[in-house]
Amino acid sequence: MPKNNDEIVEKMIKGEIKPYQLEGMFDAKKATELRRKFIEKVTNTTFSHIDKYSIDEEMAMKKNIENMIGAIQIPLGFAGPLKINGEYAKGEFYIPLATTEGALVASVNRGCSVITKCGGATVRIIDDKMTRAPVIKTNSVVDAIKLKEWIKENFEKIKEVAESTTRHGKLIDINPILIVGRYVYPRFVYKTGDAMGMNMVTIATEKACNFIEEELKKEGIKVHTVALSGNACVDKKPSGINLIEGRGKSIIAEVFLKEEYVKKYLKTTSKAIEEVNMYKNLIGSAISNSMGFNAHYANIIGAIFLATGQDEAHIVEGSLGITVAEATEEGLYFSVTLPDVPIGTVGGGTRVEAQRECLEILGCYGSDKALKFAEIVGGTVLAGELSLLGALAAGHLAKAHSELGR
Amino acid sequence: MPKNNDEIVEKMIKGEIKPYQLEGMFDAKKATELRRKFIEKVTNTTFSHIDKYSIDEEMAMKKNIENMIGAIQIPLGFAGPLKINGEYAKGEFYIPLATTEGALVASVNRGCSVITKCGGATVRIIDDKMTRAPVIKTNSVVDAIKLKEWIKENFEKIKEVAESTTRHGKLIDINPILIVGRYVYPRFVYKTGDAMGMNMVTIATEKACNFIEEELKKEGIKVHTVALSGNACVDKKPSGINLIEGRGKSIIAEVFLKEEYVKKYLKTTSKAIEEVNMYKNLIGSAISNSMGFNAHYANIIGAIFLATGQDEAHIVEGSLGITVAEATEEGLYFSVTLPDVPIGTVGGGTRVEAQRECLEILGCYGSDKALKFAEIVGGTVLAGELSLLGALAAGHLAKAHSELGR
Amino acid sequence: MPKNNDEIVEKMIKGEIKPYQLEGMFDAKKATELRRKFIEKVTNTTFSHIDKYSIDEEMAMKKNIENMIGAIQIPLGFAGPLKINGEYAKGEFYIPLATTEGALVASVNRGCSVITKCGGATVRIIDDKMTRAPVIKTNSVVDAIKLKEWIKENFEKIKEVAESTTRHGKLIDINPILIVGRYVYPRFVYKTGDAMGMNMVTIATEKACNFIEEELKKEGIKVHTVALSGNACVDKKPSGINLIEGRGKSIIAEVFLKEEYVKKYLKTTSKAIEEVNMYKNLIGSAISNSMGFNAHYANIIGAIFLATGQDEAHIVEGSLGITVAEATEEGLYFSVTLPDVPIGTVGGGTRVEAQRECLEILGCYGSDKALKFAEIVGGTVLAGELSLLGALAAGHLAKAHSELGR
Amino acid sequence: MPKNNDEIVEKMIKGEIKPYQLEGMFDAKKATELRRKFIEKVTNTTFSHIDKYSIDEEMAMKKNIENMIGAIQIPLGFAGPLKINGEYAKGEFYIPLATTEGALVASVNRGCSVITKCGGATVRIIDDKMTRAPVIKTNSVVDAIKLKEWIKENFEKIKEVAESTTRHGKLIDINPILIVGRYVYPRFVYKTGDAMGMNMVTIATEKACNFIEEELKKEGIKVHTVALSGNACVDKKPSGINLIEGRGKSIIAEVFLKEEYVKKYLKTTSKAIEEVNMYKNLIGSAISNSMGFNAHYANIIGAIFLATGQDEAHIVEGSLGITVAEATEEGLYFSVTLPDVPIGTVGGGTRVEAQRECLEILGCYGSDKALKFAEIVGGTVLAGELSLLGALAAGHLAKAHSELGR
Repeated sequence: MPKNNDEIVEKMIKGEIKPYQLEGMFDAKKATELRRKFIEKVTNTTFSHIDKYSIDEEMAMKKNIENMIGAIQIPLGFAGPLKINGEYAKGEFYIPLATTEGALVASVNRGCSVITKCGGATVRIIDDKMTRAPVIKTNSVVDAIKLKEWIKENFEKIKEVAESTTRHGKLIDINPILIVGRYVYPRFVYKTGDAMGMNMVTIATEKACNFIEEELKKEGIKVHTVALSGNACVDKKPSGINLIEGRGKSIIAEVFLKEEYVKKYLKTTSKAIEEVNMYKNLIGSAISNSMGFNAHYANIIGAIFLATGQDEAHIVEGSLGITVAEATEEGLYFSVTLPDVPIGTVGGGTRVEAQRECLEILGCYGSDKALKFAEIVGGTVLAGELSLLGALAAGHLAKAHSELGR
Repeated sequence: MPKNNDEIVEKMIKGEIKPYQLEGMFDAKKATELRRKFIEKVTNTTFSHIDKYSIDEEMAMKKNIENMIGAIQIPLGFAGPLKINGEYAKGEFYIPLATTEGALVASVNRGCSVITKCGGATVRIIDDKMTRAPVIKTNSVVDAIKLKEWIKENFEKIKEVAESTTRHGKLIDINPILIVGRYVYPRFVYKTGDAMGMNMVTIATEKACNFIEEELKKEGIKVHTVALSGNACVDKKPSGINLIEGRGKSIIAEVFLKEEYVKKYLKTTSKAIEEVNMYKNLIGSAISNSMGFNAHYANIIGAIFLATGQDEAHIVEGSLGITVAEATEEGLYFSVTLPDVPIGTVGGGTRVEAQRECLEILGCYGSDKALKFAEIVGGTVLAGELSLLGALAAGHLAKAHSELGR
Repeated sequence: MPKNNDEIVEKMIKGEIKPYQLEGMFDAKKATELRRKFIEKVTNTTFSHIDKYSIDEEMAMKKNIENMIGAIQIPLGFAGPLKINGEYAKGEFYIPLATTEGALVASVNRGCSVITKCGGATVRIIDDKMTRAPVIKTNSVVDAIKLKEWIKENFEKIKEVAESTTRHGKLIDINPILIVGRYVYPRFVYKTGDAMGMNMVTIATEKACNFIEEELKKEGIKVHTVALSGNACVDKKPSGINLIEGRGKSIIAEVFLKEEYVKKYLKTTSKAIEEVNMYKNLIGSAISNSMGFNAHYANIIGAIFLATGQDEAHIVEGSLGITVAEATEEGLYFSVTLPDVPIGTVGGGTRVEAQRECLEILGCYGSDKALKFAEIVGGTVLAGELSLLGALAAGHLAKAHSELGR
Repeated sequence: MPKNNDEIVEKMIKGEIKPYQLEGMFDAKKATELRRKFIEKVTNTTFSHIDKYSIDEEMAMKKNIENMIGAIQIPLGFAGPLKINGEYAKGEFYIPLATTEGALVASVNRGCSVITKCGGATVRIIDDKMTRAPVIKTNSVVDAIKLKEWIKENFEKIKEVAESTTRHGKLIDINPILIVGRYVYPRFVYKTGDAMGMNMVTIATEKACNFIEEELKKEGIKVHTVALSGNACVDKKPSGINLIEGRGKSIIAEVFLKEEYVKKYLKTTSKAIEEVNMYKNLIGSAISNSMGFNAHYANIIGAIFLATGQDEAHIVEGSLGITVAEATEEGLYFSVTLPDVPIGTVGGGTRVEAQRECLEILGCYGSDKALKFAEIVGGTVLAGELSLLGALAAGHLAKAHSELGR
């Protein structure tokens, strides 16, 4: 056993101690420190910031990270208050936003202010689920159809098997069951309670696949799971199936603004906002073959996801969706539709200390909070989108940036 | 002037002091503290973590955030060494990864190990640019065509105007110039040096648009910029145009693995990996109408983006791309193609203290580093993708998760 | 009443008689002749072919065409025999193909020959339905959700109303019910028997929409059908929703070729065909953002659709789908998956005399024939696709064209 | 040599004479008749319509069809006059339309009437080209980049080689040159004069590929054409690349209708049409992941393509595009944008006798007519689209169908 840090680091450099082995040798804090020193040494750097954190290393290494060397820090601001008239979130909220994009928080904040002055955002969750779709190989389309039929007929049994792996996950459907040639892609659809749930559904689906393979073998049909994810889930990639069917929370948020408020607070008109939305978000995205018929959902989703410990790769899915702006006789109808927002209020990154505090700001940490949190996310996206379209309509996006010196 | 913190917070609650006004009244640190106390008060929470950070508030508030109340911390690990045979990045690298998704760093690390043992990843940048595409309204398709022709004929003049706003940005093309009805979407293509460059190109394009409007007016043609971004850019949304034309850095990374190494290190065969890639990444994504013909680029892009201060919303674009796995007579040809990776090594979030240190780990902070950094990103995605496909081929994804207790 | 043709044509030129008015004045044949003469006169042309047809004008004008002036003729060839092992189509078939693209029939024929020699094509219908999705406006997302819930709860009543308009149409589902902002897109899914069924489902859905509007009014909720088709149907446009959910007949056809036959009949290898399929149909289509992961389904769909009186605009939908080619130890597994093939064996163009004869060649005219016909279509696409991929693999596509002098 | 028809057919049934061998034994008419009799015999059918045609069999068998047995007939109607203010098409045109979809001609005709009364359709061709994109395999991304660079540097030489195969084809660009892993997809862009040009560009590209392979071999770089079409062309499949870059003729047609005319002729309002367009064509297509942001381009494209001898499979490409409807202070701005319309006025099916007559109705048969013809196609699509959106806005689509008894 090497006596001091330098010796250990020396042994790491020689390859005699692997970075991950430190965990068995030292406590988490010490292991982290040693790895950090190792990286300093081999990359000839000196750290005075990634070692500044208040995260409990032991918990982090159990749940969130391997080869830990420290933490990065992302500046945290807030927008609000934002009045939300949801089914679960009711009242005014201050929204924590973690970002390094100057002007973003200010922009969302402006949107919050306008919406709140106009009575608040109406928000609803139109769907809630997590999916996993393995790809299963059969011998022929004939067997593929048999497999599909078998799955439909034995749903209850499969459900029982899948749910035996989890306390919170509920298998609510296997649909669609796509077939391409002799390959079958059954999309397992779960409720995952307050967790985002990807790991939960992966484990449950694995057991279900084993069960399906065995049962069909008994009936003389050979099927084989090629991959536990066959990309019809679709996890962390933009996809038509999620745009249409939804994944995670499917959220709609809307607000009505009287014409006088559009003029007063956004310095533009309903008609101008409708036009920007049509030529930018709808037609511009159409001609560019984009799946994001919106201005910048990803910005707001990103900032709130990081602040609250959501999975950063799910920002991809949150970027999908359609903004509607309609100039009516009374003023502006404005809405955002986000079909694919995977989030949780327990598990994953939500337990990281600062992120947990951000969820607490919203009153959304822990159980029975996910739908409330989803509504707040929807309302915040509405605020950010309204603010940017308003600014574009008023013709001063770049000006805003340059004035803020960025 | 209120005397103490409590008084100020009280005034903030009453609305007599706005959160953003604190910046004129106090230094950045104090303003941040007061806002934090305000949020604690109005949301009835107590913070002991979002106040732990080493970020310079003044710099952050100038460049990255408004209404700052602190910071969040994201656990940081590393993978590597990863041998990269790039044009700019040559040698072995330790990759900083910030994530809260357990098992991700371990998985990337495994990929690094395999690749490095097999001689390293070959990586190339096949394109490098940043785009902004306004939408300009004309009176008729006849004028739309005139506008398009005018832009093509006067490229040099437009270039001069656009570049007058920036030291580093170079307008290299305006292409394609899309027309829908009487609306024109000229896609301004810039080189932005080591900066990601979105703000730079927005400001340059705004000036160019003003110039175009004025010049065409002189020729008797009325054109009007509806929005500085017409969504053909396409920023922070998944899109066909970026998949095809590229945006940010377009990166390809590849590795050849002899069959014996596939068996030894990945516990599977080339043929099995080829099959998983075909039925999952190609056909599974095809039938799901996904633009991500890969397993999890977003995971790796996400972790490296956060560690190094890239814009989190650009993870969306980084999720696009195609993985190729080909079983040849000698073994496995494996590559990742990432057409749309917007990154920088100066500006934006790269200046945040800990993130800057992460760039320094890679020898990539500052000028003349962006292409090197892009190659490292490409190599890391290759490692993460190879590892996951190998694991799926070996049939133990969920098992890995459950063994790690997640 | 004008006495002779010349006088009438003169009056038509003067606008005193409208082309469509001729139908009330003369029998269908005469009206057609007069319109033809009118067109000859006003366009200064002489016709000696569009007047050569054996179509019953009266029937045509009642069912298929307005302002009839004659007919065009499309050359008709055949491919086959093609052995099909379907659930409905069993045996060898001669496939009528109407096209003007030289080499197409020869190519399909070659495919038929190879498949038949190798035991025939296995074909299955994996889904069968016709859809219509109106767009309905409500006041708010709150009402949109109520509308969706109401539709789900009152499915049986809606079904009764919709089916009251048709003898053959059965409303089997309303799913998905998409919501964007306050707009609702319920996708009505019907079985339409042997008819392609678009008009049937349009009429049924209109009545259902009226019913829904009235019933919700009684409950104090104002909803309004903006358009009977809200483009989530999706009729005659390529779409992700149809690729995923299917429309018309969803067909899979497959064949196994022993390696020796691949060599003997296609002059290439399984591996070469697998490679062409991967780099062209899968990756080439992926990077081009195409929804057709195949070589030329539309060619074969087009030729068989025209021959048998299907709606030419539905060729668009038939172009979607995925070809699988897999080199196994025994030889080649090859399949085509066509999720979206709208066809009928009664109604529409199937009644046109020559087209009806083509359906009779297949034993597919009239009732209880649509699924059999669909299986033959699937088998024929398989033949055409196998032939072209084989030819590409053997490297002689253009050569074939040039040798045939085209 | 068998003496009479019955004997020959008997030998065909026994397989002693193959259907295609008849061409060497008899003249084209006789060969066609014998094959028809053969099909009658083996399928136990009797033909009295597919034998009614005036097509010259010899020419057809040389250019358009193999295994000819006759022809099908498609009812031909006309719409118009339609006033077109094009660059090439100026004046009023009567549009031949071949279809079996009742009400379609009437609907287009109504659109023509409205447009003509309001001053006519403005139509422009914004692009004109035909593409072919092979897929070329290299050893590594390093070679793939070299290949790309070589192609760009040697464009003039490649051009010379490619153009040596054709009198009319001109290689104008090779762009984009896509790379995925070590595979390269250079998109060859040609002008093809008045021909649609697919065969022309295939032959030219094949020669170019051979040349490229040989030249790179000299430089020590091994590249290999996997397939002459790598699906980035993209021929006869819907694709983002063609939506964005265009293929065939890219056409825009537009019309302005004063509000009083919208009311008088379409029985609705600009605002209502704008709304239908937004919620159906834009948002409905967006949420369905469709590439056709229109109501029914394929219907009109289909009817005019068949009437004039275009390739029926190209209807797929013609279905792409975006309809714009904008309620302005004066009335309605309405346009159709069709980026991907492959057509010709010489070659292919345009030579078939009746189809040629249809082109003559438009004054578009033969040389120097393709652009004029394209403008007419654009104007006709505008008419059909305006008519349907007007009808939907007026709420009577299904009613129209039911009144016409269909």
